[in-house]
Amino acid sequence: MPASVDLTYGEARTFRPLRFDRVKADSKDAARDVESVLELVLPKPNGSHHRVHEAMRYAVFAGGKRLRPLLVLNCARLFGVEPHRALRVAAAIEALHTYSLVHDDLPCMDDDDLRRGRPTTHVAFDEATAVLAGDALLTLAFEVLSHPDTHPSADIRCQLVSHLAKAAGNAGMIGGQMVDMEAANHPFDAPEVVSLQRMKTGALFEFSCEGGAILAGALASDREALRDYARDFGLLYQITDDLLDVVGTSEQTGKTVGKDQRQGKATLVSILGVDGARKEAERLAASAADKLDRFNDKADVLRELPFFLLDRES
Amino acid sequence: MPASVDLTYGEARTFRPLRFDRVKADSKDAARDVESVLELVLPKPNGSHHRVHEAMRYAVFAGGKRLRPLLVLNCARLFGVEPHRALRVAAAIEALHTYSLVHDDLPCMDDDDLRRGRPTTHVAFDEATAVLAGDALLTLAFEVLSHPDTHPSADIRCQLVSHLAKAAGNAGMIGGQMVDMEAANHPFDAPEVVSLQRMKTGALFEFSCEGGAILAGALASDREALRDYARDFGLLYQITDDLLDVVGTSEQTGKTVGKDQRQGKATLVSILGVDGARKEAERLAASAADKLDRFNDKADVLRELPFFLLDRES
Repeated sequence: MPASVDLTYGEARTFRPLRFDRVKADSKDAARDVESVLELVLPKPNGSHHRVHEAMRYAVFAGGKRLRPLLVLNCARLFGVEPHRALRVAAAIEALHTYSLVHDDLPCMDDDDLRRGRPTTHVAFDEATAVLAGDALLTLAFEVLSHPDTHPSADIRCQLVSHLAKAAGNAGMIGGQMVDMEAANHPFDAPEVVSLQRMKTGALFEFSCEGGAILAGALASDREALRDYARDFGLLYQITDDLLDVVGTSEQTGKTVGKDQRQGKATLVSILGVDGARKEAERLAASAADKLDRFNDKADVLRELPFFLLDRES
Repeated sequence: MPASVDLTYGEARTFRPLRFDRVKADSKDAARDVESVLELVLPKPNGSHHRVHEAMRYAVFAGGKRLRPLLVLNCARLFGVEPHRALRVAAAIEALHTYSLVHDDLPCMDDDDLRRGRPTTHVAFDEATAVLAGDALLTLAFEVLSHPDTHPSADIRCQLVSHLAKAAGNAGMIGGQMVDMEAANHPFDAPEVVSLQRMKTGALFEFSCEGGAILAGALASDREALRDYARDFGLLYQITDDLLDVVGTSEQTGKTVGKDQRQGKATLVSILGVDGARKEAERLAASAADKLDRFNDKADVLRELPFFLLDRES
């Protein structure tokens, strides 16, 4: 297999190419809208501690696909949630996601110099500032969720705080990163890799989808369907990420590539091979879309998104 | 001035020594009770990510004075709040305080090897685990506060989350640490040091006192009185901390001493001198106690605590 930059999935392309334009347009709108809310909720650089504000903004406004906000907005739309509320949840999740990138890139963690095509926060500032900016973004996520602007019902705000804390905490994202730190040269099998990824990236995808439903006070069965969707989606996303690490370039992805192999990290790509991983990604895309059967055509973007991801080049 | 280990404040000792036994007993009870709640809310080491659980527990159960829990419990008692609710707020604050110690001790921050008489978390484990354990403790604080066991009213739980996020965030504790990182060899004057300390340690003391009042849905004027008390208390605490760094020993304090001077950090002790700083601490103790005039004898421990701190040797 040549290290090609062509990530085309023939079948997916011929099968459902028509609605990708809509996904692209919706994705662009979501990014623009969540960035305008992030602009409002992030502190403006001020006072003698302005450096931490600058680092928070540097990390958040480095671009990024804003995929989690796209999920929040689309899932909230299924239930007719007012967009300005969904955007605050989306901004909180994006702030928290950014903190995880800043901390994961630290020299003592993945030691990465490049992220979203720019020097990582600890390179652009310094390690201490990066630790503090990450801490501040994590804390800000809970400040935003608990604010009455997010929802008039304190009960719903508390549910959001509680679910995000669980998704991002020791039994979710942080636990996954802990396992990942020990994954180098550890002979993980496929189920172990799936379990790791479900914690490390899956938990926040699950909250991104369920958050929209929580805002609406949706039925438990609807929430469960969205979590199931997010589970397939998150794993699919991780496989495409791992594929890019193998067959992509830094120019495309804006980050260091070839790392997993150098670090001897087991991924579904290293276990299943490139072709096997692609097949599994295609299977997950179809499975994710199926989970949305109960929703009508308002879920079209969510249905297409997994297939769109199969084609991602960054 | 000899580098004596005697921190006796003559006047304070003769003035109000009688009730110190009660402060000591109350302090011991508070530590025991909050530790039993921390034991319940901290994850038991489990799964392939057990290392982060072990590090969280190592950091939290390293001893410590549990001063913030003591404040929460005593302030909650002023309003007749049920102890098991106050204890959950106290546990959340102690988890968050511990995270700040773990991150502040990192090599890229204060680079400390010794804390509470034991190797710091990144020394006992490793830097990556210490970053993650700190992140997990911060996240856990919000999980605990947002849980219905903390208070049946979601509105009150949300207020707690919101106030803690502000106290601990970029405009509070984290902002103060950012300024402190740049304080080495920076010619801060006394008002600048006071402003830094009010953010770095004061904000969490303020929330510790106000948290008890929030649990009770107390009057704004009562909450303001407790914040005023906490402001004096926090500054007094910081002065006694800085004094110990100058005249204490590592055996006494369980942490590295003489650091501020080596790092050229301005403190109220370096600006006012040891005697001047002691006088200012005494003034603040009296001022803090005065702020409690509106409360009856239920505030006795809170009134004595600042004077007790004047005598602290660790």
